[in-house]
Amino acid sequence: MNRQIRLAAHPDGMVRDSDFEHVVAPVPEPDEGEALVRNLYLSIDPAIRGWMNGADTYVPGIHVGDVMRSAGIGEVVESRNPRYNPGDRVLGFVGWQDWSIVDSEERSVEVIPPVDPATAFLSVYGVTGVTAYFGMLDVAQPQPGEMVVVSGAAGAVGSVAGQIAKIRGCDVVGTAGSDAKCAWITDELGFDAAINYKTEDLGAALSRTCPEGIDVYFDNVGGEMLDLVLERINNRARIALCGSISQYNATKLPPGPRNLVQLIPKRGRMEGFIVLDYLPRFLEAILQLGEWVAAGKLKYAEEIVDGLDRAPGALQRLFTGDHTGKLIVRVGGA
Amino acid sequence: MNRQIRLAAHPDGMVRDSDFEHVVAPVPEPDEGEALVRNLYLSIDPAIRGWMNGADTYVPGIHVGDVMRSAGIGEVVESRNPRYNPGDRVLGFVGWQDWSIVDSEERSVEVIPPVDPATAFLSVYGVTGVTAYFGMLDVAQPQPGEMVVVSGAAGAVGSVAGQIAKIRGCDVVGTAGSDAKCAWITDELGFDAAINYKTEDLGAALSRTCPEGIDVYFDNVGGEMLDLVLERINNRARIALCGSISQYNATKLPPGPRNLVQLIPKRGRMEGFIVLDYLPRFLEAILQLGEWVAAGKLKYAEEIVDGLDRAPGALQRLFTGDHTGKLIVRVGGA
Repeated sequence: MNRQIRLAAHPDGMVRDSDFEHVVAPVPEPDEGEALVRNLYLSIDPAIRGWMNGADTYVPGIHVGDVMRSAGIGEVVESRNPRYNPGDRVLGFVGWQDWSIVDSEERSVEVIPPVDPATAFLSVYGVTGVTAYFGMLDVAQPQPGEMVVVSGAAGAVGSVAGQIAKIRGCDVVGTAGSDAKCAWITDELGFDAAINYKTEDLGAALSRTCPEGIDVYFDNVGGEMLDLVLERINNRARIALCGSISQYNATKLPPGPRNLVQLIPKRGRMEGFIVLDYLPRFLEAILQLGEWVAAGKLKYAEEIVDGLDRAPGALQRLFTGDHTGKLIVRVGGA
Repeated sequence: MNRQIRLAAHPDGMVRDSDFEHVVAPVPEPDEGEALVRNLYLSIDPAIRGWMNGADTYVPGIHVGDVMRSAGIGEVVESRNPRYNPGDRVLGFVGWQDWSIVDSEERSVEVIPPVDPATAFLSVYGVTGVTAYFGMLDVAQPQPGEMVVVSGAAGAVGSVAGQIAKIRGCDVVGTAGSDAKCAWITDELGFDAAINYKTEDLGAALSRTCPEGIDVYFDNVGGEMLDLVLERINNRARIALCGSISQYNATKLPPGPRNLVQLIPKRGRMEGFIVLDYLPRFLEAILQLGEWVAAGKLKYAEEIVDGLDRAPGALQRLFTGDHTGKLIVRVGGA
């Protein structure tokens, strides 16, 4: 049988259990040109929350009754498509279910090499690692000696983004939501400083850790933090807008940053980006990230939650911030 | 004698007459390396309001007791500097006074050719025209067929910026504060549409005039207008932040645009700029603007106010928006 988690309702504010419907469907059979994939791991990403609103953005919205869209890794079990062979590991939008049907026309999945652990293709070599790579290097473009601030720095994207800036020779300050996470990003990942945004005065802490101002801000959270950074930017500052997780569950958009006007006298640039635009260059990023991991310059963390049924809870945890690194669901787990 | 208008107090909100002190000083005498300039015309610009706050930004703040800083045009009367000859017209920060002392070390002024009218070097060939040129072409980079919105479109910068986008083959919508100004930018300047922001529902009017969304926004006003544009941007939209005149007299910064997060799914870029950074390229801009003016493709308006004593009132009028094109004070006028 094929357990599926479907969208039961577009969330009103924070995601709730009642927004999901757990159903059991027959295992689908592949037609000519298709393959049957047993799903192994699901990538739990903040972007899913946006898709759940139902509006079409850079990808179609998820509608009530749809299987929840999610990137993930699976194994080809049966194939009527020459692109896929049984035993192949594939990466793509497999959805929150035990089994998926894939084809090559939509390029819905790609075969990945048998790296161990396979989950690295959902974290450091996955969308989050590649997001950090292009967001930092292509959009923010940090130069040696510059002051870089990363919010959500203990998350899957922020932790990699900050380390890339360190590799580029920058001073890096990260924000995170617990002392343990702050200790992790400084002691294990090599950030120069960390700010616990839940216990510290964020503005004062930014002034203390960035006494000469901020050249680059890699923003994963939006909200007040963005405003406080804008107040402290240097000339020619770059702000890469990766996400605004502080607002994803807002029922009404909160006001924007008062200090946005600072972009004028400081000649600042603020730019949003979507990692899917970089698909043709994913291999470039993965190879470089792999080299840094092999050289011990880049570390990453994964937290694996066992069992498809726990995917909704894992998504909720993204917004309470009680995880470190990449949140992944093991489909077949307990 | 040398009439001078000095800063009497940093303004609290809207500029008031009491923020200025009118004094009479002796005509200064040039030292070796200096020249004496009789000021002819003063450029009245929104940026002056920011300088009056006293904080150092991209230029030093104006302090209480300082002669008001202002670009302007003068004529060299006496010179002890080989760069300047009596009779030369010069352009630079001559200040709100009858006479200025200039030298070549600070490059405080540049000799300009004897173009008629000389005031064109304060408008279309001056800081405002050049601001429009680089802001539109370098920062916003409109492509043929794109939808371009310009706020403050009857002003000295906006009117030129919109015409440059037309020359580049774009559809251009401008906002202005009266029906007469709206008629001017469509009937005389060739904008495709105009919106009277004082009488129309701005959001509805943007949706009506830009039914397929906005690719480029040249922002002179900030505030609500920026928010409404962000709500309607297309993929890869560019927002050139030239000014935010709606906020220059605010005593407390208002909240920023709620729709700033649209920059992420739309991969938008928002960038501030300061025309002084383009000083080495001013000649490029002036030559191109001159070619367009000569070919009848680019029109400009100037409103000349007579008399140095009326400079404070002219500055106030920038914010009430009852002028069209470039506001200039003729120093020696009535």
